[in-house]
Amino acid sequence: MGEKPTSSRPGEFSLIERYFAPLATNAGAVHLQDDAAVFAPDAGCDLVVTKDMLVAGVHFFENDPPFDVAQKALGMNLSDLAAKGAEPKGYLLGLGLSKDISEEWVAEFCRGLKLVQDQFQIDLLGGDTISCPHGPLLSITAFGQVRKGQVVRRNEAVAGAQLYVTGTIGDGALGLKLRLDEGLADKCGLSADERDFLLKRYLLPEPRVAAAQALRDYAVAAMDISDGLIADLGHMCGTSKVRAQVQLDDVPFSGAASAMIAEDTAFFETAITGGDDYEILAAVLPENTAAFEAALQAAGLSCARIGELLAPEASEPAIALSLKGEAYTLHGAGGFTHF
Amino acid sequence: MGEKPTSSRPGEFSLIERYFAPLATNAGAVHLQDDAAVFAPDAGCDLVVTKDMLVAGVHFFENDPPFDVAQKALGMNLSDLAAKGAEPKGYLLGLGLSKDISEEWVAEFCRGLKLVQDQFQIDLLGGDTISCPHGPLLSITAFGQVRKGQVVRRNEAVAGAQLYVTGTIGDGALGLKLRLDEGLADKCGLSADERDFLLKRYLLPEPRVAAAQALRDYAVAAMDISDGLIADLGHMCGTSKVRAQVQLDDVPFSGAASAMIAEDTAFFETAITGGDDYEILAAVLPENTAAFEAALQAAGLSCARIGELLAPEASEPAIALSLKGEAYTLHGAGGFTHF
Repeated sequence: MGEKPTSSRPGEFSLIERYFAPLATNAGAVHLQDDAAVFAPDAGCDLVVTKDMLVAGVHFFENDPPFDVAQKALGMNLSDLAAKGAEPKGYLLGLGLSKDISEEWVAEFCRGLKLVQDQFQIDLLGGDTISCPHGPLLSITAFGQVRKGQVVRRNEAVAGAQLYVTGTIGDGALGLKLRLDEGLADKCGLSADERDFLLKRYLLPEPRVAAAQALRDYAVAAMDISDGLIADLGHMCGTSKVRAQVQLDDVPFSGAASAMIAEDTAFFETAITGGDDYEILAAVLPENTAAFEAALQAAGLSCARIGELLAPEASEPAIALSLKGEAYTLHGAGGFTHF
Repeated sequence: MGEKPTSSRPGEFSLIERYFAPLATNAGAVHLQDDAAVFAPDAGCDLVVTKDMLVAGVHFFENDPPFDVAQKALGMNLSDLAAKGAEPKGYLLGLGLSKDISEEWVAEFCRGLKLVQDQFQIDLLGGDTISCPHGPLLSITAFGQVRKGQVVRRNEAVAGAQLYVTGTIGDGALGLKLRLDEGLADKCGLSADERDFLLKRYLLPEPRVAAAQALRDYAVAAMDISDGLIADLGHMCGTSKVRAQVQLDDVPFSGAASAMIAEDTAFFETAITGGDDYEILAAVLPENTAAFEAALQAAGLSCARIGELLAPEASEPAIALSLKGEAYTLHGAGGFTHF
């Protein structure tokens, strides 16, 4: 509202010129010299657009390295695009900085953005930088594209489809547990490597961009798992009007996650209901499962079949879980809700 | 990070279904039942994309009515699109809610969004809702489109072009002064209508969407004025590598703004350097000025020629101001910087 917070940081335009303009190499961004970006999807393609906001203290820790925060923020959005079968194109960055945030923070943050940009060949297209009382505050809008009609939806799953997840489940949520309780890794008998693996899986999700092609070719529905496997499966079932049968024995866990679960079975539910997986949940028709598995393998990604989708029945729960041949009931809540 | 703030508000998915899904009537938004929106510009068109973040206490007052906050947030983005000559299409909404924000706040906020949507025939395409310690927190990404090559840039102004502004300048900044000092309206001898006019100009900017066609047809460069006339002209000159001569006598003021300036000449600089105008600054070649003026008039918008652009000269300032035939030097800083 016209008041100028003082800061030892360079001003907005200096920061943009020094740190953000070098990230904006797309012609439509005109080196961030305009208030708007201009671009179009390739001919015959639709844009796929996703938006995630992150605030310190909720989505990351205030003392997380900015290099990592940038990678996480961009990775979360690329994960959403990948689940839709989209190839990533670029992104807009909204960045709220409080007075205490240094130029070094911004420099390191941009170094993290650059790393992800180079990895996935995407560009910064534009954005907005603001001053705010409590920062950092991030808002990323990411753009991908698919050929028209090829987007993979969350709400188009059908009865009979087989349920798959990529990678391993629960590492992010268990990494967060380790982060919040310094003695926990020792208590669970984790090696330093196992501990670091889980901490990193929480801090630096790897978006499964390589899965996009297989999803486009073979999945009837897909979504990324960010609120926890069970909650997100619930979203898929709810919007698709199907129910699910999940064999929990088949949910893939990393060695480190398995070690924690072996130590305390409560971590089993942490793993299947906790958030921050950034793996992909996909529904694939039986006739396509072999080709889907082969395509993911060719893309360098592991996957596991964890259950199947069924026609809805009023008398049945939306999600039926089984473990060792018996029905399994969750002890706690089903997953992360944003509020 | 997995912690759930408690609130008497309905949960995220209930809020989306109850308040936000009815705003998302575009097919690509699939009633917000997916994590990503899918759309494309019309054939032969480019997308024009802009992003603005707003936080309580910086961009609006915490006690501003949510009905108005929504209109301001969306209006700011539509103002950016209009200045680029783009026709608005839709937007993504990022909304951060703290625990103390009620369901009524959300309902009123959505009522404000709906009003602007109906006025300009745009849709909510998607977004993200998060819990945050300090809210409300808004991030809007707005999409417009222009035929390929027709976007009007900020950085393509040329020497010889005539400078125009739409509407009246300074009302928003003077409205903010009135907002911050309850006795000021009386001190300046403003009528109740004049006071309310300025307060409203601060709270509810009117995006000059109707100017888009005239800008596409006749302007070589344009931008919306949000950081103050002088500062934003400086941005246009800087990125276009030209300098400007401005006759301050020709800057259009509303009757209410003129009354405040007559009372205290310090308000003159408030008006030409303060932010929140959301009018449009355009550069038009001399051969097109008559057609430009006529086109704006036909669109129901007033405009004023306030100066011209000149070739850069190292010995000359980027912006030369004159008043009553004499050079004029600003007493204060040149405009709002975000930090």
